[in-house]
Amino acid sequence: MTHLSTELSDKLRAIFGDRFSTSPALREQHGRGESYHTAAMPDGVVFAEHTDEVAQTVRLCAAEGVPVIAFGAGTSLEGHLTAICGGISIDLSRMSLIVRVGAEDLDCTVEAGVTREQLNTHLRDKGLFFPIDPGANASIGGMAATRASGTNAVRYGTMRENVLSLTVVLPSGQVVRTGGRARKSSAGYDLTRLFIGSEGTLGIITEVTLRLYGIPETITAALCSFASVEQAVDTAIAVVQLGIPVARMELMDRGLIAAVNAYSNLTLKIEDTLAFEFHGSPAAVQEQVDMVAAIVDEHGGRDFEWANAAEDRNRLWKARHNAFYAVVSQRQNAKGWSSDVCVPVSELSDCILKTRALLQGCSVPAAILGHVGDGNYHVVFAVDPDNRAELDEVAAINKAMVLHALSVGGTSTGEHGIGTGKIDYLRREHGDAVDLMAVIKAAIDPMNIMNPGKILPE
Amino acid sequence: MTHLSTELSDKLRAIFGDRFSTSPALREQHGRGESYHTAAMPDGVVFAEHTDEVAQTVRLCAAEGVPVIAFGAGTSLEGHLTAICGGISIDLSRMSLIVRVGAEDLDCTVEAGVTREQLNTHLRDKGLFFPIDPGANASIGGMAATRASGTNAVRYGTMRENVLSLTVVLPSGQVVRTGGRARKSSAGYDLTRLFIGSEGTLGIITEVTLRLYGIPETITAALCSFASVEQAVDTAIAVVQLGIPVARMELMDRGLIAAVNAYSNLTLKIEDTLAFEFHGSPAAVQEQVDMVAAIVDEHGGRDFEWANAAEDRNRLWKARHNAFYAVVSQRQNAKGWSSDVCVPVSELSDCILKTRALLQGCSVPAAILGHVGDGNYHVVFAVDPDNRAELDEVAAINKAMVLHALSVGGTSTGEHGIGTGKIDYLRREHGDAVDLMAVIKAAIDPMNIMNPGKILPE
Ligand SMILES: Cc1cc2nc3c(=O)[nH]c(=O)nc-3n(C[C@H](O)[C@H](O)[C@H](O)COP(=O)(O)OP(=O)(O)OC[C@H]3O[C@@H](n4cnc5c(N)ncnc54)[C@H](O)[C@@H]3O)c2cc1C
Ligand SMILES: Cc1cc2nc3c(=O)[nH]c(=O)nc-3n(C[C@H](O)[C@H](O)[C@H](O)COP(=O)(O)OP(=O)(O)OC[C@H]3O[C@@H](n4cnc5c(N)ncnc54)[C@H](O)[C@@H]3O)c2cc1C
Repeated sequence: MTHLSTELSDKLRAIFGDRFSTSPALREQHGRGESYHTAAMPDGVVFAEHTDEVAQTVRLCAAEGVPVIAFGAGTSLEGHLTAICGGISIDLSRMSLIVRVGAEDLDCTVEAGVTREQLNTHLRDKGLFFPIDPGANASIGGMAATRASGTNAVRYGTMRENVLSLTVVLPSGQVVRTGGRARKSSAGYDLTRLFIGSEGTLGIITEVTLRLYGIPETITAALCSFASVEQAVDTAIAVVQLGIPVARMELMDRGLIAAVNAYSNLTLKIEDTLAFEFHGSPAAVQEQVDMVAAIVDEHGGRDFEWANAAEDRNRLWKARHNAFYAVVSQRQNAKGWSSDVCVPVSELSDCILKTRALLQGCSVPAAILGHVGDGNYHVVFAVDPDNRAELDEVAAINKAMVLHALSVGGTSTGEHGIGTGKIDYLRREHGDAVDLMAVIKAAIDPMNIMNPGKILPE
Repeated sequence: MTHLSTELSDKLRAIFGDRFSTSPALREQHGRGESYHTAAMPDGVVFAEHTDEVAQTVRLCAAEGVPVIAFGAGTSLEGHLTAICGGISIDLSRMSLIVRVGAEDLDCTVEAGVTREQLNTHLRDKGLFFPIDPGANASIGGMAATRASGTNAVRYGTMRENVLSLTVVLPSGQVVRTGGRARKSSAGYDLTRLFIGSEGTLGIITEVTLRLYGIPETITAALCSFASVEQAVDTAIAVVQLGIPVARMELMDRGLIAAVNAYSNLTLKIEDTLAFEFHGSPAAVQEQVDMVAAIVDEHGGRDFEWANAAEDRNRLWKARHNAFYAVVSQRQNAKGWSSDVCVPVSELSDCILKTRALLQGCSVPAAILGHVGDGNYHVVFAVDPDNRAELDEVAAINKAMVLHALSVGGTSTGEHGIGTGKIDYLRREHGDAVDLMAVIKAAIDPMNIMNPGKILPE
């Protein structure tokens, strides 16, 4: 049963036909992400195919004060998609047109439902790529909405740095463009950045103009193992502090390596490991490799293992991208809980050691991994979502980890977002600035119909 | 005479003593930037020394609905500082404390009045630098407020990319911090980016946390001349499209070179010129130089002239930084009018040629220069601010240049900002998104006391 008014249902049906559904299975699927959070079903799902259709839906919902929740690829990890106040989920996955690629300007415009893999497949022949890589095959709209980053951010930045402009449907149904195609602009408020990271609470993104990059002439990856997680992290810190422009620098603790071996059928040495990728001209890559090798050596790292061939690299990164599922699959019927903090890099080693101590005696499988070049790391837990005691245990570890990150100038979430999962930490992190966020939310979405209950605490 | 109430005057005097002034000379100086715009005097000037003093002043002004205008270094070019509705200018130049340098994290926190030269002098011994360089010795707060960039932006980004967080006094007098020290965060709305580029219309920035960079091992500069501006620009475009990470790539047309020679006592060849700077390890710089030299060659460039010694480089960039004054000084009692657009780089050549055509027969001295790696260029005019016909002539050229930039997806201002000078173009550029900016402004500053009359058209 949905709580939609017959009137609204009828209107949506008239516009969308079969592309409007109230089937419980579809609603359930749209009321959750990839994490342990209990689903909260929307009252209906609309599959939009154009900006206009999104605008029409928003207008109809606004007229009745019904919530709207944008749905990209559903890979969210912090309960962003739970329809805690009901409403209509607007699924954007059919808005998958690559509108334009400007090879000369290294930019492109895509509809919000385009996924990063789809985009990169399309770009490959042109010698271009889009670097932001959250592992999951997320939608570009969803990535903008969560201010996503991932493995390449240490070199290329996050969605914040790589979006030139957006087309957005506002809560009124009005459609605006937040900018043009210039690399930089000082013309007015930065609306682009306001919507990036707003998690669907201020408007629905329907098109995104992105920066692109030439595929580097040389790409090389390497794995390197350490006797302790501390050595691995200190190596990463030294690389950052020397400004070596590594393209990827990922920490996987020994627990994670064991899980990854099992899940992806690999035989990596079960040790605390850093995975690197280097991009550039042959000479530039060689120079980076030499510098990193020297640092690794100094920190007692060993067994540089190379993955120069594209297929070896792909295998490595695929295994890394599946780390979440590797941990979760260590246990029958488990769900993943991925905590995510980001700290100043000088604090990283200490934070990770403290997190490690917190994990001593944790009753569920857990592993540490991280985009350590940014000071960003995660703990993935495999939890039974029906076991209250277990959830409380993990919540306590999560809380200690977040509070420590905040105490050293870090953030409660480097890339996954607030959703519902981190909502209790927002004020701890931002203090009175949260009131300013609420003022902005109330001004742009006075009826609170855009993904209500997310980001901002009551 | 000022229009301040005796009550407000008395209160400000009680707090600030001599640091509150209503002297006409000081007010005049605070009611203008560096450009031709007619000054509009504030009613008084406060020299604040702490965030608290800024907050107190704002609270007092808010209580009477009196405007407040932040004043950094006064180098604005678009009439940002004109007190068109009167009010109090809050001069932040005495807030010049470098609060903290985190060499390990490549970041620092400074008070808003710290200038970029002061900061870089302070950082030099630590082997660090802050790259954003608008030529003028602007304040860090002012640079954040105008979303400034300059010569290094092609490599290091603009203020948008290089500010980690801000301390801001809101129109209510409340003080908020917009973020922490993590490199990235997905925790809530991007308030940092909202204040960057807001030109003092949403709040007054009192502290800024910045990203820093290690001083490159090798720095090399070079000048290269071309038979036509088209060749020079096409060279620049090719360098960008190949992704060569030049640190600076500046266009100076032959008219500018002549002016610069005269003003800075140099003997540069009077031709359309590109000035480059390369940063990196010796090998990386050599590689960049070789690639650029090949491109220059292909485009008929000649006479690569090197400036490897620090003093030669400094002389070169100082001359470039003085380009504005060089043009202005071509004429007695003239003022500068610097137009500023930014376009997708593939359009740059065409735009500059069209601009050149517009300048044919222009009755005042004018020269083209630009941060062409970003697609950003300026025309500097030396105008007589009392000559209406002349101002109309330049306004018409400016308008044609801006409208053309907008028509190819560019922006009406790449870095100088809107102020009052570009206010008529904001809606042309952003359409209905301007209404959204107005909603945000009204929500945050409902009494419209923060630098009223700037950015947003009536
Ligand atoms: C295995 C795995 C690994 C991951 N690794 C990373 C990582 O390394 N880095 C990282 O940043 N994230 C990571 N994530 C999290 C997730 O992939 C990102 O948050 C991603 O950006 C979500 O995109 P999506 O399209 O799936 O959005 P969804 O999950 O569909 O939605 C996420 C949020 O964005 C909103 N939204 C979606 N589309 C739009 C739109 N068009 N307009 C407005 N709002 C919209 C939704 O309402 C919701 O609030 C990972 C997830 C998984 C499952
Ligand atoms: C010769 C010359 C060359 C220039 N070249 C460049 C260039 O290459 N690139 C570029 O980007 N700009 C350039 N500019 C423009 C100017 O230097 C920049 O706009 C600079 O950022 C202004 O900083 P300021 O401290 O002088 O600010 P001001 O001129 O004092 O103020 C500018 C605006 O910012 C507001 N403001 C100042 N401080 C604060 C604060 N703390 N909080 C809130 N609002 C504040 C003011 O109210 C005003 O609206 C140039 C200017 C000159 C004169």
